[in-house]
Amino acid sequence: MPEFLTLLPPKESLDKLLRNLPVPKLATETINTASALGRIIATDLRAPHALPEFPRSTVDGFTVQAADTYGASDSLPAYLNLIGECPMGATPDLEITPATTAIIHTGGMLPKGADAVVMLEYTQTVANEIEIFRAVADGENVIRIGEDVAHGALIKPKGSPIRPAEVGGLMALGFVGVEVVKAPKIGIISSGDEVVHPEKRPQPGQVRDINSYTLSTLVEKYGGEPIIYGIVADNMDAMKTAISRALSECEMVLITAGSSASARDMTAAAIDELGEPGVLVHGVNTRPGKPTILGVCAGKAVIGLPGNPVSALVNGYVFVAPLIRRLLGQRMDELPPSLSAKLTVNIPSQAGREDWIPIKLTTKKHEGKTFEANPIFGKSNLIFTFVAADGLLKISADATGLSAGEMVEVILV
Amino acid sequence: MPEFLTLLPPKESLDKLLRNLPVPKLATETINTASALGRIIATDLRAPHALPEFPRSTVDGFTVQAADTYGASDSLPAYLNLIGECPMGATPDLEITPATTAIIHTGGMLPKGADAVVMLEYTQTVANEIEIFRAVADGENVIRIGEDVAHGALIKPKGSPIRPAEVGGLMALGFVGVEVVKAPKIGIISSGDEVVHPEKRPQPGQVRDINSYTLSTLVEKYGGEPIIYGIVADNMDAMKTAISRALSECEMVLITAGSSASARDMTAAAIDELGEPGVLVHGVNTRPGKPTILGVCAGKAVIGLPGNPVSALVNGYVFVAPLIRRLLGQRMDELPPSLSAKLTVNIPSQAGREDWIPIKLTTKKHEGKTFEANPIFGKSNLIFTFVAADGLLKISADATGLSAGEMVEVILV
Repeated sequence: MPEFLTLLPPKESLDKLLRNLPVPKLATETINTASALGRIIATDLRAPHALPEFPRSTVDGFTVQAADTYGASDSLPAYLNLIGECPMGATPDLEITPATTAIIHTGGMLPKGADAVVMLEYTQTVANEIEIFRAVADGENVIRIGEDVAHGALIKPKGSPIRPAEVGGLMALGFVGVEVVKAPKIGIISSGDEVVHPEKRPQPGQVRDINSYTLSTLVEKYGGEPIIYGIVADNMDAMKTAISRALSECEMVLITAGSSASARDMTAAAIDELGEPGVLVHGVNTRPGKPTILGVCAGKAVIGLPGNPVSALVNGYVFVAPLIRRLLGQRMDELPPSLSAKLTVNIPSQAGREDWIPIKLTTKKHEGKTFEANPIFGKSNLIFTFVAADGLLKISADATGLSAGEMVEVILV
Repeated sequence: MPEFLTLLPPKESLDKLLRNLPVPKLATETINTASALGRIIATDLRAPHALPEFPRSTVDGFTVQAADTYGASDSLPAYLNLIGECPMGATPDLEITPATTAIIHTGGMLPKGADAVVMLEYTQTVANEIEIFRAVADGENVIRIGEDVAHGALIKPKGSPIRPAEVGGLMALGFVGVEVVKAPKIGIISSGDEVVHPEKRPQPGQVRDINSYTLSTLVEKYGGEPIIYGIVADNMDAMKTAISRALSECEMVLITAGSSASARDMTAAAIDELGEPGVLVHGVNTRPGKPTILGVCAGKAVIGLPGNPVSALVNGYVFVAPLIRRLLGQRMDELPPSLSAKLTVNIPSQAGREDWIPIKLTTKKHEGKTFEANPIFGKSNLIFTFVAADGLLKISADATGLSAGEMVEVILV
């Protein structure tokens, strides 16, 4: 049987893991709305009052009873008596009655009796009389009470990320603080006898730790709190001790295995020994990332990522990012930021396997805004293939490749 | 002459502003690479040494002189003498000579004399003799010295944002600290006699300040340091004092004008009085955002945004974001994260005017992964039209609308 039939596809792998994980308990905290960018709203938020709370003008002009303007035109204007001016930021102390009008500014509160506003440019002032050259309908140029949001309406469901617009909406309703989900702690363990701390000058045969830092940055990017446990020696006791400690302190544990097959097998064995059900997926039909291990110990996800830095980071985006979103209670309909681009070359791909290709985006001046997607081919050990890339291109398992000239979606990373 | 001909299009408006701004002087600071996510690299970074610094195996197997394997096949294997095992993380103390081989693990350093590696699965061990069933070429299954990055190569130009991949690449080369551009200070002034601080319960006629907070969050999102100067009364002296102070303390100043025409004219007058050349663009052919003012005082951009919260935020994305990128020295070829989606309805648009439409993205289960772009039509005063949106759709000035069923690019905001 060819090997790719014994490997689970990435989606099925993730689904199997999710079925074995309990619903996460979300810890929350209340923070200032003004500094909540990127945080996840913890509770359904409802409007404590209507917005606006009073009818407002959307233009500069004259506030009227609409019926007084019906039939008004350039040749046959309506004539209204000017009785005053509506102040900004206060209730007007005047009342519009038939055949009267008052000056109003954009954002101003409509006075009693008024139901519409005529724009300044369709009027002319003659002493105390205002000529109206256009009819307005009831409610025209007015924001009604509750037109922005009604009292009690759901303004944003829990699980939504806070963007500039949400900060504005919350402030508009007086939510100067907001309850958000606490960043879940994600433990990161690196292993490999050849791996040294980045501060050290590697001796011949040694390489600096990359994976602890690409993964901690990825965790931070997706809203988790990374906890780096350092480099663990390639032996079972050290590995078990490190994973066990991380499991007790974190909500998910990531391990980048030593690169060799024996080191990867040891990671799997350690996960199996540390809790039920242990390893659920040992090998995923994806490139890079085939040696990825997905497991659950004591209700927490434990992910064994390949030691190769590109594999580890790609599979961080594929597997770790959605798991962090889940630990944050984020609604699962994710919108992966991407860009459409025209593929520059043919890319062959094995049917049944999902491929992730680093892509450099370029533009050609004469073609306007069409991006070109240039694949960066390289061994999955070469971190600088990823540094040179703007995004990743996914080739689904059911495809046997992509053709030059095709429009593809490049996921920005 | 129709008004839209007297208004500058957004791109020309921004270009005019840029022509009147000096090249920004970038202040820099050195920070830990591990916590540099999203920061902008301040200097061209070059590799202080080759990566890798020694030839490494990419597989588990046997390291050889490739010439010894030429012609090897299942029926006619090559036979090599096993002389030892290469350790992980150290220089092997053995040498491959013709007709000899040694065990090597993924990531291990090739010993002296070796030039290729045969994968374990194409070998068989018979006592001290290794049968080789496949020929390998010189360099096969090996990462050469400098194959990831050559000594002295430019690894990332200044102006590049730091993502997880960059953190990995920097760590691989021992850059545990990195020089980044300091966040530019962006002053934010809100005005309007009807506007109150969000902590206050608005009285009839009053509304809470939204724009100070949507804009400060936008500034933060793009890497600037927002400084909120609060709500200034609608009078010339107060406005001039506030802008003058913000200009002295910040690298750019944003003012959200009171909503009325007279308040907007006052903002323009204040900018004109505070320094040369003053107002450069008074009115932009865009919706929302027509009353936008672009000016320069004493070499710093001063942007007057409309008081309407949706106008202010949309034009924050259109005008303020690129100006912050410039103050950070970011390379100007921006990649706006977007998603392709199918437009659900026709959208008419006036030729000559650029339109920005808030879009809600939905998916239909049976259509796989195609997103649908549902425009949210609403007055530009209604912040919750933006809260409900996932992104913005731009209709260029040269278009007279978009048709239902068209694929469009929705910019995620």
